[in-house]
Amino acid sequence: MDTKNIGLRGIEVADTRISKIDGEKGKLIYRGYDILDLTKKSNFEETAYLLLHDDLPRKEEYTEFLDKLAEARWVPKQMQTNMGNWRKDADPMDMLQAFVAALAGYFDEEFSTKEASYDRAINLIAKVPTIVASWQRIRDDEAIIDPDANLSHAANFLHMLTGKKPDEETAKIFDICLILHADHTFNASTFAARQVASTRAHMYSAASAAIGALSGELHGGANYEVMKMLLDIGTEDKVESWIKEVMDKNERIMGMGHAVYKTYDPRAQVLKELSRKLAEKTGEPWFDITQKVEQVTIEQMKKRKGMDIYPNVDLYSASVYYMLKIPMDLNTPIFAISRVAGWAAHIIEEKFAEAAPKPALYRPKAVYVGKYCGPQGCEYKSLDLRTQSS
Amino acid sequence: MDTKNIGLRGIEVADTRISKIDGEKGKLIYRGYDILDLTKKSNFEETAYLLLHDDLPRKEEYTEFLDKLAEARWVPKQMQTNMGNWRKDADPMDMLQAFVAALAGYFDEEFSTKEASYDRAINLIAKVPTIVASWQRIRDDEAIIDPDANLSHAANFLHMLTGKKPDEETAKIFDICLILHADHTFNASTFAARQVASTRAHMYSAASAAIGALSGELHGGANYEVMKMLLDIGTEDKVESWIKEVMDKNERIMGMGHAVYKTYDPRAQVLKELSRKLAEKTGEPWFDITQKVEQVTIEQMKKRKGMDIYPNVDLYSASVYYMLKIPMDLNTPIFAISRVAGWAAHIIEEKFAEAAPKPALYRPKAVYVGKYCGPQGCEYKSLDLRTQSS
Repeated sequence: MDTKNIGLRGIEVADTRISKIDGEKGKLIYRGYDILDLTKKSNFEETAYLLLHDDLPRKEEYTEFLDKLAEARWVPKQMQTNMGNWRKDADPMDMLQAFVAALAGYFDEEFSTKEASYDRAINLIAKVPTIVASWQRIRDDEAIIDPDANLSHAANFLHMLTGKKPDEETAKIFDICLILHADHTFNASTFAARQVASTRAHMYSAASAAIGALSGELHGGANYEVMKMLLDIGTEDKVESWIKEVMDKNERIMGMGHAVYKTYDPRAQVLKELSRKLAEKTGEPWFDITQKVEQVTIEQMKKRKGMDIYPNVDLYSASVYYMLKIPMDLNTPIFAISRVAGWAAHIIEEKFAEAAPKPALYRPKAVYVGKYCGPQGCEYKSLDLRTQSS
Repeated sequence: MDTKNIGLRGIEVADTRISKIDGEKGKLIYRGYDILDLTKKSNFEETAYLLLHDDLPRKEEYTEFLDKLAEARWVPKQMQTNMGNWRKDADPMDMLQAFVAALAGYFDEEFSTKEASYDRAINLIAKVPTIVASWQRIRDDEAIIDPDANLSHAANFLHMLTGKKPDEETAKIFDICLILHADHTFNASTFAARQVASTRAHMYSAASAAIGALSGELHGGANYEVMKMLLDIGTEDKVESWIKEVMDKNERIMGMGHAVYKTYDPRAQVLKELSRKLAEKTGEPWFDITQKVEQVTIEQMKKRKGMDIYPNVDLYSASVYYMLKIPMDLNTPIFAISRVAGWAAHIIEEKFAEAAPKPALYRPKAVYVGKYCGPQGCEYKSLDLRTQSS
């Protein structure tokens, strides 16, 4: 095969108006707006609107969007019953992938229009947090908490998860996390969503596939791996030897390095400050340990390979979620709670792009390097005559 | 963007040893063997083994594989209970996508080894038919039929679906359909499976995503659309005017034309004969109508656009399934029953390729064509100051 295509790195597959990464300058832009600005001035709901549409909402658009989102948080009771009748040790990402696909059975009207797709998008963005929180309550044998339309998207999720209304600062920290993870151009899960949508499959189907892609440890699973690493290290004084040992084995340090950013990932910058703030608030050691991981990895990479390396989005989100008392294996589902806004926007763009070049069903080429006996095929020997080892 | 990359058509993304299409000669080869030869001499179980491994099984390998497949047909009772507690009008593909993802909760040990992946593959190939048949029984308010280890894969599915053991000819016809649909290199659903697997997500997650991609009407959904067309046409004498009318509107005739085959799709050849055979057996008109659709479309395409067009795999599979008395909206799930063998093989190849160039996480490039106000981002105006229409 053409080895420069490996992982499709650098291969232009579509135009997009949704987001732009400037890897050199360390900038991430949603529909023209710098995410750093959005974390300071906006919130997740408005950011979701921005991603779905091509601009920030006007007042009446915003109010309508908020109302629709709050209304759509409810999940059918029958689905919650089914969740209750499930293995309690099921992975939350598997649950989420399954139940997002299942949502289609409840909300499957008029899939084919662009207008209907916006309602599906709202439905998805609103219901993914409810599914995640419901599953957490169910597996802990606790009563499911109904969504509260008076709370923000971030505060409502934390309330449904823990049964406690978060204070304003905690809710804002979580809201910023949601803004930061909401889109990142054609990352692996978004591309999976677009790939599935390119066949004209519906939005739930495409979003469910994206959840599958996000579950992989090379993608959304990474912030779970970071937290495992932090817990394994345990105290700040053990960081240096731990990192060196892993690097001696030529293994990756999770949370460090990114295929696109050649400088500090802007999301990591913000998350680092959130982690610092939470450490001050809680007195927990995870910010200090993470910062030390960053420092030692940078030094060692420079020394061993002469390379610059920077934290990615996963390094500091792990400790932030941990200090927010979110169960570790919900790190990736929380990534999904946010990224679903981007997926929905991309699915709509994939299916309803108005300007040329329009996307087409993705069907790449593979290079056959297997057994070949000419176009007539290899000789089929009957079972009795097969003696070769396979 | 680079418009020659649209739909990734012609872009080499990976090496594969699994299958090869010779679009010029109209040949499809699985691991070196011509599918026409396999339809005559092999069966679906052996073909699945062939796709998963690099050659046909020896006797003891085959026996062990058959035993494992037959044992793995059972689906957890709890899952069937949950299926029973579902909306009866849910689309079977949505159900399948959801429940394949959910399987991971039951069989999630040792995902990380290649050896374990073969067991997952057997599990998937064995259980997908049981899920499809169970759902059909449930939505029809009929008792679920347990798998019968004494029946072949094809016969067992038809038995679980209808409650009747099929005669030998019927079972063989269905078996041939399964062989023909089992793999087709990097089609959209297989590429979705590989895309998800490239993040290191597990096999159920990747297969569930592939089911999502298959559900799209541009992919596996096409044979459902073909049957809708045949029913809409109704009688052979109406074919010509129906086709002309659709072509006048510049719309596609479903089941005709293929991106890769420049001649008769070898699968369509075989399915055409199966459809003819079933029409003789049942006295139904669907073969004659389909053949007329083929003939008129070929004539009209030649006349209108000077182009040659040929039937694809969906044109004749629609009438075959219809005459086998399979509910129309199971056409695509049946495609999945077969294609899951190929998906599993591709997922294993994606994750455990031993020869360079090894696959890497698929993360293509997008070209940002949206709003841009420089790297500092557009000015964020507060809600009160927004007057532009969005």
